[in-house]
Amino acid sequence: MTELETCLVSLVTLFHRYADEDGDGMTLSKKEVNKLITTELPIFLKTQNDPKTVEKIIKDLDENGDDKLDFKEFLSLVAGLSNACEKIFMLHKLKKSKK
Amino acid sequence: MTELETCLVSLVTLFHRYADEDGDGMTLSKKEVNKLITTELPIFLKTQNDPKTVEKIIKDLDENGDDKLDFKEFLSLVAGLSNACEKIFMLHKLKKSKK
Repeated sequence: MTELETCLVSLVTLFHRYADEDGDGMTLSKKEVNKLITTELPIFLKTQNDPKTVEKIIKDLDENGDDKLDFKEFLSLVAGLSNACEKIFMLHKLKKSKK
Repeated sequence: MTELETCLVSLVTLFHRYADEDGDGMTLSKKEVNKLITTELPIFLKTQNDPKTVEKIIKDLDENGDDKLDFKEFLSLVAGLSNACEKIFMLHKLKKSKK
């Protein structure tokens, strides 16, 4: 598989690995989102320094207001995190070019 | 790095690897999108069976109409492909559960 294909497969299998935990394999419950974020994004969680981070994330992403995240809502989280990563990447690139 | 962190870093570095090719490291030109898709998504491209696929993708994703794709527009491609992958994944899961 190519790097992008690997990434796409990762996103799908990762979502379902956590979504399958409480039996409903279609959405992430609050408990599952909590487990996904604490397991998969430990550094991000540390930088937030707010015990309500997970709760806020769910509230922000849960477009249909069912207190769960479906795959599309999970992709919004991935997009937000990717954008943040890209900003950091560009800052480092800029610093490097100024040296 | 966790699986999700690896995936986020992959998306950023992959975008910039192709965006850097013609000097402008901030966006993907048509030529760069073409190279990214033919290199990273060979199976997807085969299934489309349309010589204008790349052109159509750019037209669909290029929200600001500058004939280039920035990182946010690239993420829309990733989201579209992930959604398609997830549909296939769910179909396989359904078939398996019926056996």
